[in-house]
Amino acid sequence: MSSSIGNRVRVSIFGQSHGEAIGVLIDGLPAGERIDREELQAFLERRRAKTKFSTPRREPDAPEFLSGLVDGVTCGAPLCAVIRNTNQRSGDYGKLRDVPRPGHADFTARARYGDAVDLRGGGHFSGRLTAPLCIAGGIAKQILARRGVTVGAHIEQIAGVRDRRYDPVAVTEADLAPREFPVLDPAVREPMEAAMWEAIRALDSVGGVIECAAVGLPAGLGDPMFDGVENRIAKAVFGIPAVKGVEFGAGFGVADLRGSENNDLYYREGDAVKTRTNNHGGALGGITSGMPLIFRAAFKPTASIKAAQETLNLATGEIEPLEIGGRHDPCIVLRAAPCVESAAAITLLDLMEERG
Amino acid sequence: MSSSIGNRVRVSIFGQSHGEAIGVLIDGLPAGERIDREELQAFLERRRAKTKFSTPRREPDAPEFLSGLVDGVTCGAPLCAVIRNTNQRSGDYGKLRDVPRPGHADFTARARYGDAVDLRGGGHFSGRLTAPLCIAGGIAKQILARRGVTVGAHIEQIAGVRDRRYDPVAVTEADLAPREFPVLDPAVREPMEAAMWEAIRALDSVGGVIECAAVGLPAGLGDPMFDGVENRIAKAVFGIPAVKGVEFGAGFGVADLRGSENNDLYYREGDAVKTRTNNHGGALGGITSGMPLIFRAAFKPTASIKAAQETLNLATGEIEPLEIGGRHDPCIVLRAAPCVESAAAITLLDLMEERG
Amino acid sequence: MSSSIGNRVRVSIFGQSHGEAIGVLIDGLPAGERIDREELQAFLERRRAKTKFSTPRREPDAPEFLSGLVDGVTCGAPLCAVIRNTNQRSGDYGKLRDVPRPGHADFTARARYGDAVDLRGGGHFSGRLTAPLCIAGGIAKQILARRGVTVGAHIEQIAGVRDRRYDPVAVTEADLAPREFPVLDPAVREPMEAAMWEAIRALDSVGGVIECAAVGLPAGLGDPMFDGVENRIAKAVFGIPAVKGVEFGAGFGVADLRGSENNDLYYREGDAVKTRTNNHGGALGGITSGMPLIFRAAFKPTASIKAAQETLNLATGEIEPLEIGGRHDPCIVLRAAPCVESAAAITLLDLMEERG
Amino acid sequence: MSSSIGNRVRVSIFGQSHGEAIGVLIDGLPAGERIDREELQAFLERRRAKTKFSTPRREPDAPEFLSGLVDGVTCGAPLCAVIRNTNQRSGDYGKLRDVPRPGHADFTARARYGDAVDLRGGGHFSGRLTAPLCIAGGIAKQILARRGVTVGAHIEQIAGVRDRRYDPVAVTEADLAPREFPVLDPAVREPMEAAMWEAIRALDSVGGVIECAAVGLPAGLGDPMFDGVENRIAKAVFGIPAVKGVEFGAGFGVADLRGSENNDLYYREGDAVKTRTNNHGGALGGITSGMPLIFRAAFKPTASIKAAQETLNLATGEIEPLEIGGRHDPCIVLRAAPCVESAAAITLLDLMEERG
Repeated sequence: MSSSIGNRVRVSIFGQSHGEAIGVLIDGLPAGERIDREELQAFLERRRAKTKFSTPRREPDAPEFLSGLVDGVTCGAPLCAVIRNTNQRSGDYGKLRDVPRPGHADFTARARYGDAVDLRGGGHFSGRLTAPLCIAGGIAKQILARRGVTVGAHIEQIAGVRDRRYDPVAVTEADLAPREFPVLDPAVREPMEAAMWEAIRALDSVGGVIECAAVGLPAGLGDPMFDGVENRIAKAVFGIPAVKGVEFGAGFGVADLRGSENNDLYYREGDAVKTRTNNHGGALGGITSGMPLIFRAAFKPTASIKAAQETLNLATGEIEPLEIGGRHDPCIVLRAAPCVESAAAITLLDLMEERG
Repeated sequence: MSSSIGNRVRVSIFGQSHGEAIGVLIDGLPAGERIDREELQAFLERRRAKTKFSTPRREPDAPEFLSGLVDGVTCGAPLCAVIRNTNQRSGDYGKLRDVPRPGHADFTARARYGDAVDLRGGGHFSGRLTAPLCIAGGIAKQILARRGVTVGAHIEQIAGVRDRRYDPVAVTEADLAPREFPVLDPAVREPMEAAMWEAIRALDSVGGVIECAAVGLPAGLGDPMFDGVENRIAKAVFGIPAVKGVEFGAGFGVADLRGSENNDLYYREGDAVKTRTNNHGGALGGITSGMPLIFRAAFKPTASIKAAQETLNLATGEIEPLEIGGRHDPCIVLRAAPCVESAAAITLLDLMEERG
Repeated sequence: MSSSIGNRVRVSIFGQSHGEAIGVLIDGLPAGERIDREELQAFLERRRAKTKFSTPRREPDAPEFLSGLVDGVTCGAPLCAVIRNTNQRSGDYGKLRDVPRPGHADFTARARYGDAVDLRGGGHFSGRLTAPLCIAGGIAKQILARRGVTVGAHIEQIAGVRDRRYDPVAVTEADLAPREFPVLDPAVREPMEAAMWEAIRALDSVGGVIECAAVGLPAGLGDPMFDGVENRIAKAVFGIPAVKGVEFGAGFGVADLRGSENNDLYYREGDAVKTRTNNHGGALGGITSGMPLIFRAAFKPTASIKAAQETLNLATGEIEPLEIGGRHDPCIVLRAAPCVESAAAITLLDLMEERG
Repeated sequence: MSSSIGNRVRVSIFGQSHGEAIGVLIDGLPAGERIDREELQAFLERRRAKTKFSTPRREPDAPEFLSGLVDGVTCGAPLCAVIRNTNQRSGDYGKLRDVPRPGHADFTARARYGDAVDLRGGGHFSGRLTAPLCIAGGIAKQILARRGVTVGAHIEQIAGVRDRRYDPVAVTEADLAPREFPVLDPAVREPMEAAMWEAIRALDSVGGVIECAAVGLPAGLGDPMFDGVENRIAKAVFGIPAVKGVEFGAGFGVADLRGSENNDLYYREGDAVKTRTNNHGGALGGITSGMPLIFRAAFKPTASIKAAQETLNLATGEIEPLEIGGRHDPCIVLRAAPCVESAAAITLLDLMEERG
């Protein structure tokens, strides 16, 4: 399989950028959970990110629920939600197959599926497919919230400009609440925006990092070795287009630490066992410790840039100039926070449902 | 499930550090593949790393094959191989459950499995369980080699001392060959060793980074979204104890790149389509491009250190001093390269078998 | 998970009888396969069975394809097809939860999902969910046909009236072709219809048996023990509501045979290895032999009957009379052949794709 | 995969008849469960069936536990148990590949795995592989018993001689207890034995049917469509060599019933909801009703018979006489009851663990 993830709560994503519709099927949702449509829509809007930088399609991204709900409440049957694609165009389709855009999946998708592959607008590999991911994520977040688990994310870095990180031992629900421009330190917004303007002027794009955290998790979730919290979250997060790295807790920073610095010491606070630092990021041996779960995901700069590029014409074997039309985000990180939250939320709900 | 991974070639690992045996079950291996026992043993010895720093157990780690082979050739039936644990001791068992070692899975494992959990020597969470992983990995490497795919790894970093990285577009089989001290630049060995001696003197430990590459892969392996090459390799690599981050190609470095820098331009070389740079690390949209697959994994410093630490006594609720006896590696990164290669190799073989 | 089946080609079914829509998601279909919509529609009509006995809903059951196709050809991305429910009614919903209909899943579904369960018209347990199964089955049949594999089914038994069985060694594609009244021996139609009229007059219903066969399969498909052809087909066929038994080849009849009678002797015909009899039904050790795959499925009589019944009111604890309104098939076996073919076809396509 | 089954409790079987060992790996067993070794051994002895008819190998079938237990109690880590093969012989190996025994998997296994396949004594397809299945089953039965669930089985039929069936509404734990000759009606033993003697005298073998039941199950276990109780049990039971059919409750008998006869009417007994009849066999819509779970499995006559047979020499293309040496059971049904119980028990434990 491919576009499907989860053991007990299984999320399957379908659709192509320029097909009839995109959507998500969720099998295994607990029954009896009310889905707040307004809250879900607000969450989806965060992904659409109607900022001055970004270029959302006209579609409202309002999901239609085809199954799984009765009067807005999950009934236990698989939930299917779809979003219609209203502005499909297919003009340059044939051309695309022969002239793969650098940094996109055009070439690899064709290698995988042959000439029948749908590359229009990126096809099934389009960033647009994060919309159904966010439907699943938004639903999972609502259910998790009722169980005391809050998931949030912020832009930790754009083009080298860094926000402060979550306090790994004291991140609060308030820290995880959505913001119009999702950074913790408002002062970094201006330099981040400046970096993006600069990229736009250069007909270029920039990359960044999203940091995500979940609080309220019980200790003891996850399985050892290959089905631990980190394994599963990494598997989900690498499903978001453009992600090139995932790290938990101190992450790659552990390479510079000594054991005496990296080890998180236990203590008791009330009835809870806690650690004084949180370099482990909330998981040890693949199993949650009850401390905040914290991870970061690196996003490459938008592959579609306006600057002139060259590429190989697979049909002719010639290098030829490539111009990518349309408007494209100079930085998809702006819209990535809810996607990362979604990947985390569907994984955590799966883990919680598995434990029963 | 937990200690099991793979779609078509499924690797399941079992055993506890101080139990009767550790082992691996591999279901779905292609039939008719000769397993070179000497080559496999040499691979396993790389993990045992009898260096002056490390402390291998006395066991020879010679796997016994219980099934799946006839006269040294795979017969298609599930292959089971075990390594006996010869020096089990269980003296301090009861104590362990109440006094979780910082940085280990003692606390989380108990939260997960309750009082019946086996924490002796780390139980099922012990680094010793990487031995059966390497049995599977060594077998996968042999089969992959026959199909023209070579997997290798080196120490990219120990305690802040960095080796050079693989040339992402020109890494060769020779670069991937095993070395006694697995670095590309022999000059970094001395400062790495010095850093480890320093840590030893401080009764402490250090972390590091392993870089892994695979060459010879065809384009078109992998599935979109959640079952791509990166998703699966990350899921496997996070199964190695102490890994806190995984990144592909330019990895977290993409956050500082512009699209025009990060995009890898296509060209043709003979019949092959290649890219002039390889920031994508060999996978786009989860599917192999045919360029070298390159990723790095961050390893935290060994949690077991000789320096005095404190921990919480879960039974009494008191903080108490903790001393960890025995000899422990000051840096598990020394032994980690074959483990990371194994995680990659079993995943790549699975991908190749899936494609048929 | 629940409503999902398959390893490499994964079929997931969603929808409730009185919800917005029912549908199917197929992940892993080979790319480049043209889907003949007319042929598919004709196949779906066989399930709707507009005979004098049956009571199809008004809906045309015309699937809308939301994804996975470009110009009618599979593109490798997950294929989603939906059928709108046009005549949803929800009048008696509340009542249903308290007064489970005998022979239906009302009681068990409520035990499983609690009060939020959707029982309107059977909800996700309705026979109507076999329509999306047949979409998947019809697609699988078209792809299989291009690979030389033909799947068909007939009514082997209704209310004790028996059709002749397929000739297990010589069943042909012609035998497997659809018929208006799907029996092999036209002479059994009249007594079968008479039995159904009699049941209708008695306000009652009757059961039966479907026999299914596939020809053109290569030898060597399937895996031993739990993932063999028989295991997988049984798992799929028991997914059709009302199935209470599945048997392959000589089936339960083997209990009366001696080894010397049951063993199928090998011989060569041209280049092919064949067996002179086919008591094994085309699979030995879970693996296809190349002989016709033959199995039968027993269907219970329609649970919804007009005759007066009693049931337990779960709210009051009292036994009370139950009358089931609406029109119901006196025998679902009439419509079951394409459902059984579908269960077989999706399983066989999965097996063939797995083998590559 | 192949020899592996289960969602939450995953049972994987390995070994070949004439290899080093056979065994089972169980991943996902609940922690803290004491395994009574004597009780397990007694269960395994039932499979060995040292009757006057059967021909057990000399091996004591005493499992060695390599992992997953500490002092006889499950610790949550994967449990691996192995049985050594002490009397491997491999004399006629080469011959076997060319001269497939009728009714065995020799031919299909070779079609699947090629010349490297292990056919010695049936290889991985041997009935001997039911020993590790019974290790898993015996463990599952012990855990189920602590949760109030009892699983048992009896010979319902041998060579046309029928035992009475379980009372579907009133089967008791006593009915399910093991017996030396596992029939409910002692009077059928003599004619069954007579039928077997007759087959032995004719150098032949006979088939039969096993009936299995489980009592004490809660209502609400199982998932709709493809992951229901019946789907899963059928998938497991078809994993036992020689099974050709599986039916639940009234089974194939439903074809002769009217709806008014087949529908099971609800009533209340104390706090429990029950049905007055149990044609549904304990599952409706794939979900347990709380009534006894009842199913039957048809076993073909032993394929290895002493009588002269012919077979095809695949190398020469000639039909040649075949004589099968050694001693073979005239009826494997004698030893099948614990195997069927095991298939049921591992499935039911999986279902219960999934529900949490």
